[in-house]
Order: sequence, then C-alpha cells, then structure tokens
Amino acid sequence: MQARDGHARAGHLRTAHGEVETPVFMPVGTQASVKALSGGDLEALGARIILGNTYHLALRPGPELIARLGGLHAFQSWRGAILTDSGGYQVFSLRGRRTLDDDGVTFQSHLDGSLQRFTPEGVMGIQRALASDVAMVLDECPPSDAPPEQVRAAMERTTRWARRCVEAERAPGQLRFGIVQGGTDVALRLEHLQAIGELPFEGLALGGLGVGEPPPVMHAVLAAVVPRMPEDRPRYLMGVGTPIDLLAGIEAGIDMFDCVMPTRNARNGQLFVRTGRLNIANAVHRDDPRPVEEGCPCEACRRYTRAYLAHLFRAKELTYYRLATLHNLQHYLDLVRAARSAILEGRLAAYLQERRAALAQDESTVDSRQSTV
Amino acid sequence: MQARDGHARAGHLRTAHGEVETPVFMPVGTQASVKALSGGDLEALGARIILGNTYHLALRPGPELIARLGGLHAFQSWRGAILTDSGGYQVFSLRGRRTLDDDGVTFQSHLDGSLQRFTPEGVMGIQRALASDVAMVLDECPPSDAPPEQVRAAMERTTRWARRCVEAERAPGQLRFGIVQGGTDVALRLEHLQAIGELPFEGLALGGLGVGEPPPVMHAVLAAVVPRMPEDRPRYLMGVGTPIDLLAGIEAGIDMFDCVMPTRNARNGQLFVRTGRLNIANAVHRDDPRPVEEGCPCEACRRYTRAYLAHLFRAKELTYYRLATLHNLQHYLDLVRAARSAILEGRLAAYLQERRAALAQDESTVDSRQSTV
Repeated sequence: MQARDGHARAGHLRTAHGEVETPVFMPVGTQASVKALSGGDLEALGARIILGNTYHLALRPGPELIARLGGLHAFQSWRGAILTDSGGYQVFSLRGRRTLDDDGVTFQSHLDGSLQRFTPEGVMGIQRALASDVAMVLDECPPSDAPPEQVRAAMERTTRWARRCVEAERAPGQLRFGIVQGGTDVALRLEHLQAIGELPFEGLALGGLGVGEPPPVMHAVLAAVVPRMPEDRPRYLMGVGTPIDLLAGIEAGIDMFDCVMPTRNARNGQLFVRTGRLNIANAVHRDDPRPVEEGCPCEACRRYTRAYLAHLFRAKELTYYRLATLHNLQHYLDLVRAARSAILEGRLAAYLQERRAALAQDESTVDSRQSTV
Repeated sequence: MQARDGHARAGHLRTAHGEVETPVFMPVGTQASVKALSGGDLEALGARIILGNTYHLALRPGPELIARLGGLHAFQSWRGAILTDSGGYQVFSLRGRRTLDDDGVTFQSHLDGSLQRFTPEGVMGIQRALASDVAMVLDECPPSDAPPEQVRAAMERTTRWARRCVEAERAPGQLRFGIVQGGTDVALRLEHLQAIGELPFEGLALGGLGVGEPPPVMHAVLAAVVPRMPEDRPRYLMGVGTPIDLLAGIEAGIDMFDCVMPTRNARNGQLFVRTGRLNIANAVHRDDPRPVEEGCPCEACRRYTRAYLAHLFRAKELTYYRLATLHNLQHYLDLVRAARSAILEGRLAAYLQERRAALAQDESTVDSRQSTV
C-alpha cells in the first residue's frame, strides 16, 4: 500500500504484465476487443489493465484457438494486464438461458443455442488457456431482489466453488481472485467475506452489486463492508458503475473497477461530462460548436465539436462510436486517476466533494433545452 | 506538370487547402466522415484530399448548418483538401428514386421520402456553402447499357448544365471541374470532351465509367480518351475502381481517383493485398498468425494477425471496421503513391508490369483452401 486517505487506498496491482496503479478503472473488452477501440487507442488513453470475458471468449473464438495463438495477450496484441471474468455474471444476466446445479452451470449459447457447461474447474481451465493475469472464480450472482435464503444458498455454493477453484491449476504468474456475494445484507456480506477471505486468493472481489439495487443501498454496503476486507489484498468491485458509484467505492477502499457503462453508453449517445451526462441525440447539440467537454484531452474533444458528433450519431457513422468511446473512457480513467492523486496527496475528501458538487448539477443543466429531434 | 512517363503524369493539384501530389487516390467521406476513420487516421495514412457528397450532405445535416459552423473543413475538422461530388452520380445510383427534367433532378430522399430538388445552380450553391476546394458540376450519368441516343441526350444535357454551372457563384478559392460523359463510345466521349473542354473549368472529370461495363471496355476508353484530354488541367476519373483499374487510369494519364471500394469492401470482409484480395470470413484465416500483408505499414498489419481480424469480423466488433478500412486505404494510397514515384523515375512500365503480375496470381492463391465457416 502506497498511501491511505480515510478508508481509501492508493497502491499497486503487480501482474505478469506490469504494475498497475490503483485505484484503477478497467475498460471492458468482452470479446477480446474494447468495443470500437484498438490497442493503440487504449494505450493512448493510458489504460494499463482491461477485462476479457470467459463466457464470451469460450464460445467464440474458443480457448483452444486463443491458446494456440499464444494466449489472450498475443491474440489481441495487448501488452498491458488482462483480468478475465469467470462467467459468474452470466449466471445472473443470462438467467433465462441457463440451468444451475451444485456442480456448475449449463448455458444455452446466445450464439447458436448449443449447450455449454461451465464448472469451477472448467472455468479456471479456460482462464488458464487464455493466460490472463487475473483469473476470477466461478460464482453464483443472485439478482438484487432475491430472498435471503436464495442469497445465502448462492453464498454457500460460491464458497464451495471457490474451494474447488483454488485447487485448479493456473497459468504461470496468474493471480486468482475470490468473489464475495451476500446481496445487500451487510451481515451476510461479512459472513461470506470471512469464508472467502480464508482461502488463498491474491485478491478479493465484491460480486452481485450494481444488479438492480438503488445506488444508496449499494453505497451503504460498500461503506460497511469494504473497510473490513483484508488490508493486504486488492479489492475489486465487479461491474460497477456510474461516476458517483466509483467515488463511493474509492472512498470505501475499493482498488479496482470495471463496467461497460462508459463504452456501452457512448454507443447509445450518452457522453459523460463533469456535470453529468449529455445525450448527443438531443437537438440542442446539433449546431453547438463546443467540444463535449472543454479541456478534455481525448481525440473527440481535442478535435471535434458537439455538432459534428451529433451529426455522426444521427447518420450512424462508425466514426462516432470510436470517438464517443474514447471520450467516455477518458472521463472514467481520469476520474479514477485524479482520485488516486488526491489520495496520495491526502485531499480525497476535497476531491470527492468537488466532483459530487459538479455532478449534483446533474445532466439537466447540460441537456436543459427540450429535444426536438 | 512535374514529370511524364508515356501518357502518365506526375503533378500537383493546387487547392485552397494545400498542394496535392498527383496521381492521387481520394478516400470517400460521403457524410462528412470516411466511414470508421477519424481525421487523425486519415492524416496517419497520408491522405491529402478526401471526398464529400453533395447529395448526402444536403439531406443531412444540410448546407446551412455546415455553413454556419464554418464550412465542411471546419465541420469535420479536416485540414487537407476536399472535393465535393455534385449529386450527378445519384442520378444514376438512385434512378428508382428520382425524376429528371431539363432543368434538374428531383430525388425522393432515401432518409425520409421528402422531395429534394437539385438544379445545376442549386448544386453549385450547396457546394459554395460547403466551401469545398473542388466543386463538381451537376451531370447526368447514364447506365452502362444505355442506348446511344440516351447517351447522347445525357451528354447534351450535361453540357447545358455545365454552362449554367460556370455562371454560378463559387466559394473563395474554389476550383470547378467539368464532367465528360459519352458512355463507352470513344467518338461520343471525344465529342463531349470537346464541348466540356471549351468551358472555363480548372479540371476535367470522366463520369459514367465503372458503372457496369466490363473492365477491359473501360480500360480501352481510358487509353483512347485520356491522352486527348487537355494537358494543362487535372484529369479526374470519377468513382473508379479496382487496383487494376487505377493502374490502367494512371497509365492513360489520369491524375485523380476516388472510389468507395477500399472502404466498403473492408466493411464486407474483403482486404486488398498485392496478389489480389482475401476474404477475412474465409475459415482459412481463423488461426493464421500472419498479418494481412507482410510489410504493410497500417495499424492492422503492424499489430494484428489475420486470426484476430477474422475473430473481430465474425464477432461484428466495431474495431474490425476501422482496422480493415485503415488497411485497404493504406493499400490504395500506397499503390498510387508508388506509381507516382515510378513516373518521376521514368520506370512506370516496370512498376505496372510488376503490380499486374502480382495481381495475375489472383485472390485464388490467397483464399485457396476451402471455406468451412
């Protein structure tokens, strides 16, 4: 640990592909590609670690092919670190296409309908073939409205699966992270943290948050649970969230984040700015000669106007998707990097206050005029 | 003119946005964007002049908005030169959605079905608002199978429209190019060249080629007509074509080319290489660790394998479209730049022979194994 500021921490994640400064935001590259970007784009953004998704890569192009081509880093020509998800999130997000039993989960492929079996050992085997820097265990992620007995059952299954995962062989230098479930019940979370924390994982993740519960509920869970996670291991909040969520996570002591929000929302026309979000489809932007955000160093803001991006979005030009993605990732990466600097300088509280005050103005100040698209 | 080699020429096109070395290939940016690329991408490729399309820009976002934002260069943040098409090609390509009369053409918008009137004066007015560096006159482009009387009627109408266009006001520094029609009949072509050549245009274009006639027929027309075009003015072959077509055009003395082929085919999975084209959807590429073309300086070839591009294409990842477009434009730009060097060094014949010999191997050598996608 490099520095502490309240519960917040600044440190490093040491991987086989370099040291990553934390807190860190990890762009999501589900299918071995951060959508619309190239590796050069990610390097220009200063991204040092990205995600790949075991479920998606297992289906296409398949772990054997990736292994034959030298692993996921070589396959997608990415020199930084890679964390691979386990497929546990798909237990939640594809719950209409899977059956769950004590030994694992069977998905009906979203690509061709074929049945795909994922077990704790199988998932670690796939991640071994991918040779990611950080492998996640298979877990069961219940929905936010699951009754307590279902949350408890998912915890217990996740613990049994975690024990099986730590027995599995891993790629050279590969780190292994456990996943803590427990829904939004702090007592259950702490109980599961105890169980998972006893296993020999190099890092611990919180799963099953940001899956439908109100943000204040999640923030309360973070404030109660994260400070009690082991001090000496990286803490990863999976799949979360909005800028406000990231600030809450950092304040509570989270080190690592990933989320599709900046990339997916970019493609849907939503661009992040200090005061909230703007919807580039809004007619107000059609003749606006300003950049999306004054002073933003991304290619979109350095070179293009809101008017031009609004045109590209309307015309469904491919160029839009890359520029918007670059902007939103720049926003997310900078938000977290600035928090890290604030922690190092012992001024996180002031930083959080400043960012939250800007966000409290909300997107209504940005998109105030009525749309007449 | 800087140099001649046979009928071929190396020279410069002087525009309000810089000098462009010719022969030159101009990437097509129909809707104020070369599909999937940014201005930075085009600069990295060394593109110095790109196309915009009057018909598409008139419909969306409209010339008034572009003019208000400082013209097409400012709107799309492009510092190089821009040539705007006139909408004459859409007289051909949208012939199911337009009615033609002696005063102009009425399109039914492909966006919202509204009626859009284009006259010679109106088209020059739009291009004046766009403030492109080179404006094209409105012409009537007949299909390749049009009977001689229709070809002649289109020529005569194109001449009348050209006379009206030269009377129209233009943007400061804007060049104006006339368009020669005449189908594949050399006598008609020469007759129309005579009529258009008499008007005060800064350059002359051949329209109505590459619209369905066999390549050898087009090449014969080029060989017979281009050497008789005025020596002192740039010669532009509109909308053509394959690498073989470009070599034939350069050999005959063409200075400027544009075509959607490199960009459109990239998106459809067809990648240009010295020996022809490869279809990235072909199963043979799925585990091929080689770049698309060894030695190609584009980002796709410097960093990625055929296997990775094949995966991105299958997964419909947005990243594919940019990488493939970069590669194909690199191929086209380099093909023409190398021809220019050959002309300057008086070795064009050897260059043409070498490129044609490589292409004679054809794509069959690249995609020889059967697809089992």
